[in-house]
Amino acid sequence: MSRPTLRVALLGCGNVGSDVARIMLRDADELEQRIGARLELAGVAVRRLDRDRGVDLDPALVTTDAAALVTRDDVDIVVEVIGGIEPARELILSALASGKSVVTANKALLAEDGETLADAAAAADRDLYFEAAVAGAIPIVRPLRDSLAGDHVHRVLGIVNGTTNYVLDAMTTTGAGFSDALDKAQELGYAEADPTADVEGFDAAAKAAILASLAFHTRVTSADVYREGITEVSATDVRAAAEMGCVVKLLAICERLDTPSGSAVSARVHPVMIPDSHPLASVREAYNAVFVESESAGQLMFYGPGAGGPPSASAVMGDLMGVARHRLLGVRGPAESMHARAEVLDIGRARTRFHISIDVDDKPGVLATVAHAFAEHDVSIKTVRQEGRGDDAQLVVVTHEAEDASLSTTVRELRDLAMVRDVSSVMRVEGGAARRERGTSGSTSATIRGGSR
Amino acid sequence: MSRPTLRVALLGCGNVGSDVARIMLRDADELEQRIGARLELAGVAVRRLDRDRGVDLDPALVTTDAAALVTRDDVDIVVEVIGGIEPARELILSALASGKSVVTANKALLAEDGETLADAAAAADRDLYFEAAVAGAIPIVRPLRDSLAGDHVHRVLGIVNGTTNYVLDAMTTTGAGFSDALDKAQELGYAEADPTADVEGFDAAAKAAILASLAFHTRVTSADVYREGITEVSATDVRAAAEMGCVVKLLAICERLDTPSGSAVSARVHPVMIPDSHPLASVREAYNAVFVESESAGQLMFYGPGAGGPPSASAVMGDLMGVARHRLLGVRGPAESMHARAEVLDIGRARTRFHISIDVDDKPGVLATVAHAFAEHDVSIKTVRQEGRGDDAQLVVVTHEAEDASLSTTVRELRDLAMVRDVSSVMRVEGGAARRERGTSGSTSATIRGGSR
Repeated sequence: MSRPTLRVALLGCGNVGSDVARIMLRDADELEQRIGARLELAGVAVRRLDRDRGVDLDPALVTTDAAALVTRDDVDIVVEVIGGIEPARELILSALASGKSVVTANKALLAEDGETLADAAAAADRDLYFEAAVAGAIPIVRPLRDSLAGDHVHRVLGIVNGTTNYVLDAMTTTGAGFSDALDKAQELGYAEADPTADVEGFDAAAKAAILASLAFHTRVTSADVYREGITEVSATDVRAAAEMGCVVKLLAICERLDTPSGSAVSARVHPVMIPDSHPLASVREAYNAVFVESESAGQLMFYGPGAGGPPSASAVMGDLMGVARHRLLGVRGPAESMHARAEVLDIGRARTRFHISIDVDDKPGVLATVAHAFAEHDVSIKTVRQEGRGDDAQLVVVTHEAEDASLSTTVRELRDLAMVRDVSSVMRVEGGAARRERGTSGSTSATIRGGSR
Repeated sequence: MSRPTLRVALLGCGNVGSDVARIMLRDADELEQRIGARLELAGVAVRRLDRDRGVDLDPALVTTDAAALVTRDDVDIVVEVIGGIEPARELILSALASGKSVVTANKALLAEDGETLADAAAAADRDLYFEAAVAGAIPIVRPLRDSLAGDHVHRVLGIVNGTTNYVLDAMTTTGAGFSDALDKAQELGYAEADPTADVEGFDAAAKAAILASLAFHTRVTSADVYREGITEVSATDVRAAAEMGCVVKLLAICERLDTPSGSAVSARVHPVMIPDSHPLASVREAYNAVFVESESAGQLMFYGPGAGGPPSASAVMGDLMGVARHRLLGVRGPAESMHARAEVLDIGRARTRFHISIDVDDKPGVLATVAHAFAEHDVSIKTVRQEGRGDDAQLVVVTHEAEDASLSTTVRELRDLAMVRDVSSVMRVEGGAARRERGTSGSTSATIRGGSR
């Protein structure tokens, strides 16, 4: 019996694209058996024709005219792995308008303008799938969208950028400062020559927007995501974390909160101290992991390689197989549901705990003065201790949960105090919910065993 | 605009069923917005009418006649959470034959007779979904079936039974023996009064069959799964593991192997020693985790609560939402693909490393004699050390990878040797592949940080 054929246009043939092409060509027979249709490469759009791509492509398939390729009548599915905003956006919109289904790995575009893409896909009644956009090979889009479709997600905490996790892990392990650890990461190929998108948190913020949108059925864009990178994290911060039984991680934090006016969501990316015993503390080197807290499922974690050609190709291929099945059936698969339309909160209204180091004059009354500044802004202190004497005197304050805006005001005011020489470090502390639940949740109370540093 | 309604029959209203009913009733509006159809309870089949189920059900919905309920014209989807082989099998087959889609959490039935159910679903052109059958709330069926549909899974290692993980974790943490740890687990509600299905590995074996079938596109039944429980694991074994930098876990191990006659698969459940640094070593108490090694994605891990009413209800609800979407579209969702039809290997042909403790006479020549017995059966020794002297003399041997059958023969022969008083412990050692890959896999080389014991 002859099976139907679905023709795939591949936009981009770099690391990920060439792996997708290689798998499609090598495994055509097996993939056909799995879905009941043959996947055929209809064309591969590249920027330059003369580059070796490490995959044996029929030269007749390769073109520099991506715009023509995506509207061709003999194309059923378009895979976009070019990245960046343009021309990717125009190409995807044009593909959808021409009735093609689309698989993309483009986190930046999805986070900036996911709504336009989603609307275009809905209008065309075609799939727009993007598992590879967040956390590489780790299935997280599908679990949030489909597996947890009947549950209520409260919170998503993700290590979604391998470069920054590698750098912070190296700082933790070796005691190195940020620049030394970054140099080493660049040397080993874990960080790009221009590491800005990673170390300043732009990459993680895009992923936070995508995760928050999926988890809370509410459109969140990268502009909604508060963002702080890891460039200010010092060896001292890492040591201070260790003294509290914590490690420093760059987390994407997506939360649903109840406010007087209803449900609201917040998404932010910044360095945090999390307890050694938290499952995310155990995620080392360039690995990614996404920790999900939901009402019925409880605490889930999804762990794996967050980047690289083959892992991303695995995610693209999974989407391609799903989208192909839907084409065969003549239907559209499940899409993001944005029905909740919750308010997206400003970082100022996020609530978290803080670890603050304050260089102070070593005088009687300094603690009272500092404590007063916190109290005035409703920031409740959990512990405070003095370190050093004389010129090295420092107060280390850990707060209870407080509003981010109140803490910022407090810190500004502390800086104006005569007795305060400097507020040398402010870092948020997360992972408390996991700790709280551990003591109380009965048969599901457990944790991945924390680090052996 | 009035949305369509899909009517759901619930078979069983215990822990999981009552949570499913509660969520359906409480969240009806929100679920409707997510899928564009209203889910309505058409009926709930129970064994006894007079029991309080902790959920406020319209008494008119409750019936003891499950057989009539599953064929009723006003039912679209049947959720089976009774468990066991019969009457669950007859009810599911009858539901499918009547054109209902089915969601089930029934691991025992799926592992024993999945083929009959899958064939019936295919013949009826209806869904048979079963995310809750393996590892509770952890999305693993969908990732293996859909997300990794374009990848090649080499190996699945799963902690898929919470009771045994709790007992082994307690033995590791406290140094207790098996019976003391089991007593404690029963006291705390982590183990049933009759713990046989858990501690003898039957529950894990059913899940291994389901995971192997999905991962390798080959039907594997519980009868194909080699099974050893944890009742023979002693405090000494746990200490011996710790000396090697390992912990003892009960793992479901599903592997694809290349044999001269093509691809083959094996599935087995038994206690193993795994290195502290392996991500699975960090899974504590009653938590579950499934570790997947695949060609492109590399190493993935899925972690979460493996049992309990709410977690299982979360998985059932996710399936229910998916199946409902397919009903609306008039299609069948992706099903298991069994195209590979690989040979299912006997345990004898599985290859693994072994840790063997041999009580010996403390005489010159004993090591040579023992080493000779291993060599004769092609089992290569990696390390051997003598512990104790005189009457306590013991040889502890760790082998390189060897065929299970060769090792069994070696052990039988050792027991016949005059110098050998007893072979006091034989345990397999796993997690080596992870260790090997860590050294060589470049940018994805990392691991969840191991235990802090």
